[in-house]
Amino acid sequence: MTAESGIDVLVSEVGPRDGLQSVARPMPTDVKHGWIAALAAAGLPEIEVGSFVSPRLLPQMADAADVVREAVRIPGLTVLALVPNLKGAERALAAGTPKLTMPVSASRQHSMANIRKTPEEAVEEVRRVCALRDETPARQRFDVEVGVSTAFGCTMEGPVSEDWVITLAVRLAEAGADSVGLSDTTGYANPAQVKRLFGRLRRELGEKAGGAHLHNTRGQGLANVVAALEAGVTTFDASLAGLGGCPYAPGASGNIVTEDLVHLLESMGLRTGIDLERLIAARALISEGLPGEPLYGHVAEAGLPKGFAYAAQRKAA
Amino acid sequence: MTAESGIDVLVSEVGPRDGLQSVARPMPTDVKHGWIAALAAAGLPEIEVGSFVSPRLLPQMADAADVVREAVRIPGLTVLALVPNLKGAERALAAGTPKLTMPVSASRQHSMANIRKTPEEAVEEVRRVCALRDETPARQRFDVEVGVSTAFGCTMEGPVSEDWVITLAVRLAEAGADSVGLSDTTGYANPAQVKRLFGRLRRELGEKAGGAHLHNTRGQGLANVVAALEAGVTTFDASLAGLGGCPYAPGASGNIVTEDLVHLLESMGLRTGIDLERLIAARALISEGLPGEPLYGHVAEAGLPKGFAYAAQRKAA
Repeated sequence: MTAESGIDVLVSEVGPRDGLQSVARPMPTDVKHGWIAALAAAGLPEIEVGSFVSPRLLPQMADAADVVREAVRIPGLTVLALVPNLKGAERALAAGTPKLTMPVSASRQHSMANIRKTPEEAVEEVRRVCALRDETPARQRFDVEVGVSTAFGCTMEGPVSEDWVITLAVRLAEAGADSVGLSDTTGYANPAQVKRLFGRLRRELGEKAGGAHLHNTRGQGLANVVAALEAGVTTFDASLAGLGGCPYAPGASGNIVTEDLVHLLESMGLRTGIDLERLIAARALISEGLPGEPLYGHVAEAGLPKGFAYAAQRKAA
Repeated sequence: MTAESGIDVLVSEVGPRDGLQSVARPMPTDVKHGWIAALAAAGLPEIEVGSFVSPRLLPQMADAADVVREAVRIPGLTVLALVPNLKGAERALAAGTPKLTMPVSASRQHSMANIRKTPEEAVEEVRRVCALRDETPARQRFDVEVGVSTAFGCTMEGPVSEDWVITLAVRLAEAGADSVGLSDTTGYANPAQVKRLFGRLRRELGEKAGGAHLHNTRGQGLANVVAALEAGVTTFDASLAGLGGCPYAPGASGNIVTEDLVHLLESMGLRTGIDLERLIAARALISEGLPGEPLYGHVAEAGLPKGFAYAAQRKAA
């Protein structure tokens, strides 16, 4: 993060994509619009608003183009959408999406089960999307971010080779990705591994080393954030209210909770640009769009500590 | 931790004291015996088994002497009990307790509300207990550990001066305490603060710098463990199943969960000497003694990762 941006760490909200994708029933499109607007108003600089996958497979994401078209009108917000392949990228481009994210699984079994492609075939798909980016006129140009999923272990394969994760990340950068991050899809990561692997990623990829997508399945989500910070990571995905997965349920999403992440960072003196009260208030929109859906998170329940001060306030003092 | 001990980090179980103290109804004494035996059999090297406070104030702890007498018969286990003052220390000594722990609050308001003593008066009480230790015959000699409570902030006072926390810790060491640790009684600590404060504690106290007692009230418990490890801390308190406090409820105990802590440490390659399956199985004894009491913890619910290996196994491989 640059000093000009006024923030030290970029928190990227994935609830409207990753969260909603794990909930069977769809959230009404107008509630999505309102929720994304509330998240942006709370200061979130980047939001992953949807996924350009087959509406047959994920009816919750059928309105992705509408959601993108509304979200890109919000000043100062970086709008991100997931695309699984070139076809999805073409749809995302048509909707005017400024930043695409593509998951590429390091685990061969997970990759085959999930997208019926080997990791090597997935790299070629990233190359095709990057070629589309490069031939797109500048005013419609989009960024391509890749997240290496199952980078810290796989529920099917168990441990995943760290050398292979780094090799794959290098190939993805060479294929043209603007940045390559690492995802703990399965909640297997531990802080020592996170620090080691992000350290290697940054040494190998330099400027193209991307952010951390961490889960809290075994309660280690924020512990892994601390380790990633030590390795120099400055971008973190998180989901408001941990939407889409009980942190306890194996196989469920279990994203780290945005409110808890922001509280952690701000309490450590790292500026996020996010207002915690407004962020917590935005939980109500999840309940409006998905009545009865469980909301997770410690800070929303326990409240802010007495005398809590944002990092920027403390820097000014 | 020494290489001879075969462990890298000492996990000290506080459930039978700190956990049970927060539960209104008492656990039957024979269930306590069985639970402590099961914890020791799982490999826990140290257990805080009770509190020598007034049975009028805490009827749950009325059987402390019985519990100590049974626990000290378990080979290899360090048995710890909390004492608030000299009178409690005399009762603990009569029961044959080998290690006493005394809480001294850094927050003046918390100290007055809790024990009706100023921090300075509490230091004098520690001095009296250390004098009792020094005049006790060698075969009954006990250690005196002090935990500085509200060291990272106070629900009444808000922020607590770090300089004052260190000053107080130095006075406690000078008063004769064998070790002085820091407690995040209120769940206010953040990783930057934990690393800074334990770093200072270790520089000031050297060998007498004690362990970390961390809470998970705002979801930062294990994140703070990572920071404390970075500062060189090798002893951590934790409570099986997070007994005695919903991690969400302000004012509740919210101890970090022993199972989750052990999984974190072992996954990082740090040996605890503890068997996770046996540890998780010991949760059943809480339910036996306190039917319906909520049990917390991520690892017990999500299970161990596929291909999980203990630190010792990996070191041997």
